[in-house]
Amino acid sequence: MKGLFITLEGPEGAGKSTQIELLNKYFSEQGYEVVQTREPGGTEIGSRIRNILLDSNLDNLEPKTELLLYAASRAQHVNEVIKPALKEGKVIICDRFSDATLAYQGYGRRLDKDLILKLNQMATGGLEPDLTFLLDIEPEEGLLRTKNEVRDRIEREDLSFHQQVRDGYLKLAEKKSRFEVIDGSQSIENIFDNLIETLEERLELNEDSE
Amino acid sequence: MKGLFITLEGPEGAGKSTQIELLNKYFSEQGYEVVQTREPGGTEIGSRIRNILLDSNLDNLEPKTELLLYAASRAQHVNEVIKPALKEGKVIICDRFSDATLAYQGYGRRLDKDLILKLNQMATGGLEPDLTFLLDIEPEEGLLRTKNEVRDRIEREDLSFHQQVRDGYLKLAEKKSRFEVIDGSQSIENIFDNLIETLEERLELNEDSE
Repeated sequence: MKGLFITLEGPEGAGKSTQIELLNKYFSEQGYEVVQTREPGGTEIGSRIRNILLDSNLDNLEPKTELLLYAASRAQHVNEVIKPALKEGKVIICDRFSDATLAYQGYGRRLDKDLILKLNQMATGGLEPDLTFLLDIEPEEGLLRTKNEVRDRIEREDLSFHQQVRDGYLKLAEKKSRFEVIDGSQSIENIFDNLIETLEERLELNEDSE
Repeated sequence: MKGLFITLEGPEGAGKSTQIELLNKYFSEQGYEVVQTREPGGTEIGSRIRNILLDSNLDNLEPKTELLLYAASRAQHVNEVIKPALKEGKVIICDRFSDATLAYQGYGRRLDKDLILKLNQMATGGLEPDLTFLLDIEPEEGLLRTKNEVRDRIEREDLSFHQQVRDGYLKLAEKKSRFEVIDGSQSIENIFDNLIETLEERLELNEDSE
């Protein structure tokens, strides 16, 4: 049995974490073994890299350094966690993956997208998610939702940065059929209904085509 | 006034640290402002990356993750420390740089050298040392010199790995005229005499050609 690799993407405050918990419950109740993970992080080494990336005190972190650290965390995550879990037929639900680097560092920081693609390819060995949910939300609205939390190094960027990230995500979603764009301004219940509908449609399609 | 960027390379136990201290003293006594630094590390962010790279408990660090972490540390180091110091006309003496990644990860771990060259180019923006001393020593002899110290994750690799690293360094030295190979099995005094002779010859040559 082949595993299933689902990623959730979206701007800050789009509600990814809540939906990931719900998806985990949904698959678990159906008897699937679920691996819930995230980037940057997902491994001990990745967590140590994540601590550097999100440390608000490191305000002189170079954009290139940031990009290379995301790639390093991803290489470790893919090889240590995702590939082995897929081989064992598990369902992997991952909070951000390669698309996030294109959206944040490519569209947000305007780093060279070809370079990012090369680094993603290097880190993942070409592995792509089976399905990517983009929880789309206006940055103003998303950031409002996170305003009572302590903001990390990325969340502190200005609104125009977050606007570019959102636009970048929408462009990526147009290019790749594995994306499903979900309106993140809806209620938690409605968003989850959208996710499950998509899952049922897409997984049925996959079964039909086999 | 243009600065001077000197790197010291070589297998474990070749005596780099001692010679770097002596070179620092030599230039300082002549009135130069000296920046003594090292890779991985050289910055606060680099030190945190270095701690991951050399942690002997992280025995599942993926080769690709390792490579990307070295590149991340280098990108930060070049932009935060080396380039600004060069602009200010300082003498930078650096313990390992891009060549080390080719020697250790390329020749030692047999990772794709073209990929390493691309990552080095990305991290350095094309910056190369003005002069690179390769302190060459038989790995058996070098490792004997370090045997009473606690060995880090790289030093613990087996002898054939360190032999490949040494061979790799010698191949790099053949290709690039900025290299000067020094016999690291000599006494500290003789090695230092060799370094100073080379410096005087090469810097005089540079002055003549200007």
